[in-house]
Amino acid sequence: MSIIAVIYCSRTGNTQKMAEEVARGAQGAGATVDLMQVDEANVEELTKYDAIIIGSPDYYAGMAAEIKEFLDASVVLHGKLAGKLGGAFSSSANVGGGNETTILSILQAFLVHGMAVMGEAIGDHFGPVSVNAPDDRVVHQCRTYGQSIARLADKLRG
Amino acid sequence: MSIIAVIYCSRTGNTQKMAEEVARGAQGAGATVDLMQVDEANVEELTKYDAIIIGSPDYYAGMAAEIKEFLDASVVLHGKLAGKLGGAFSSSANVGGGNETTILSILQAFLVHGMAVMGEAIGDHFGPVSVNAPDDRVVHQCRTYGQSIARLADKLRG
Amino acid sequence: MSIIAVIYCSRTGNTQKMAEEVARGAQGAGATVDLMQVDEANVEELTKYDAIIIGSPDYYAGMAAEIKEFLDASVVLHGKLAGKLGGAFSSSANVGGGNETTILSILQAFLVHGMAVMGEAIGDHFGPVSVNAPDDRVVHQCRTYGQSIARLADKLRG
Amino acid sequence: MSIIAVIYCSRTGNTQKMAEEVARGAQGAGATVDLMQVDEANVEELTKYDAIIIGSPDYYAGMAAEIKEFLDASVVLHGKLAGKLGGAFSSSANVGGGNETTILSILQAFLVHGMAVMGEAIGDHFGPVSVNAPDDRVVHQCRTYGQSIARLADKLRG
Repeated sequence: MSIIAVIYCSRTGNTQKMAEEVARGAQGAGATVDLMQVDEANVEELTKYDAIIIGSPDYYAGMAAEIKEFLDASVVLHGKLAGKLGGAFSSSANVGGGNETTILSILQAFLVHGMAVMGEAIGDHFGPVSVNAPDDRVVHQCRTYGQSIARLADKLRG
Repeated sequence: MSIIAVIYCSRTGNTQKMAEEVARGAQGAGATVDLMQVDEANVEELTKYDAIIIGSPDYYAGMAAEIKEFLDASVVLHGKLAGKLGGAFSSSANVGGGNETTILSILQAFLVHGMAVMGEAIGDHFGPVSVNAPDDRVVHQCRTYGQSIARLADKLRG
Repeated sequence: MSIIAVIYCSRTGNTQKMAEEVARGAQGAGATVDLMQVDEANVEELTKYDAIIIGSPDYYAGMAAEIKEFLDASVVLHGKLAGKLGGAFSSSANVGGGNETTILSILQAFLVHGMAVMGEAIGDHFGPVSVNAPDDRVVHQCRTYGQSIARLADKLRG
Repeated sequence: MSIIAVIYCSRTGNTQKMAEEVARGAQGAGATVDLMQVDEANVEELTKYDAIIIGSPDYYAGMAAEIKEFLDASVVLHGKLAGKLGGAFSSSANVGGGNETTILSILQAFLVHGMAVMGEAIGDHFGPVSVNAPDDRVVHQCRTYGQSIARLADKLRG
């Protein structure tokens, strides 16, 4: 089965709660999950994962600088993540406030690494989005997303 | 005072309702507004407006094909819209379903025309977003946005 | 082996040339490829492909309206493309003129369908980009991309 | 006349060269320009400028983490930049490598601040793009962009 990193940055706890639910969903699909805050994560260890999922609050329509710093640092292993699976989720204070652009900025970084990303036909299409504290809808989105990522990671490992 | 086009595509009536509220906001700030469905709008007449605001439902994370067809046709006056102001709004069936990418795709088309666009520091930052039918929050966003666009259009006319 | 659709819209022939090279790359990796202009493509037949690759000129920073119309029409089979692979490429008259946003707008539509997309660690990261007529660099990008998509489609088919 | 900040991050010198040319263009249009590396820039002083232009290399399809950190820190004056003008430019190692997404991520941050941004009808539409070292084309784009921003900033100052 797959091994998956769920890496997040959280100040209010909203993104952390989402990370925990994404991790739970992935575990429910049989994956082994390492759940960590971005300042505990080690760029060099990314190569051991089948999928990497990153969650960030929406700051000025993009990921938090701490997450960007982590992704910038991942250049040392450029090319070694190719073929792996990436995922993203975000929390925001507003419906039209940059949730989607935050997620897409993370997914685009994964594409630059030569990774694959996936969407969901039902619900939050690019990745789970929470406006303020995660409610039942968001918890469901996060679990489903974790599960879908785990299943696709298994296929890609194949 | 400024003259503003509010052009929209609507099947369920949600985007039309938003268009009416954006128009109302702009009129409240003193602008003359032409409100039209995209199939009533004439590309050649765009040059007479100080600001052009386009609203679209979110179809597959982008504007409706009817709107794209209209924007593609606007190539006949490329360069002649430079310096004008553009705005956009969208409605969607889902929080994380492409609202923002729909608005941004319209704003990016305006930038290619050499136009200016503006954000809002409070609320829906790129332009008004409705998840399903417009509620009071959305009506407020639309009116405020119409008002802000009208004021900035006046300045740009200067 | 996989069966792949390469669908394109082309007026100057540049995007068509790219489509042919992407098709060649995919065939070289063993895939069966259906190469078609968008007005020859049938939405209902999309379900038979393992991967769908769409190429468009960059019109106002997005895909041509003909392509958007095709994607909007694909709503009739929403959910049935989930798990398939998508790809995109674009041609433009300018370096910073919307090549990337055109490709990303197509990839985002695929994500809404619940499909997967992939990047390239080397070269044009989101998909092949041609500024004006495709030169040797672009031909190489297109072939490599077609090949990569075919290989990943094989994996996803499992 | 307007006072404009040109803030950049540069490791290879490419983005710095672009910044100098953007500054020259703005000065040529009569603006007073403060040109600074991002680590010399002070968030609190942003309120004194009529326009803020930010340049970044393209790292993983987005702005450098140093620039993101600066923008995240600008939350302390949220609302106070509303109505100002923003601009962006980027350098990259590749045509389809994230130039546009880097620029757009900066422009989107400005929109969240309630600022206005503008495009160019001719050339690099969202802002100047350099693939590798800036050549004559890029120098021209940068000067024209600086000039255009300065002129629009004058209008917005009213």
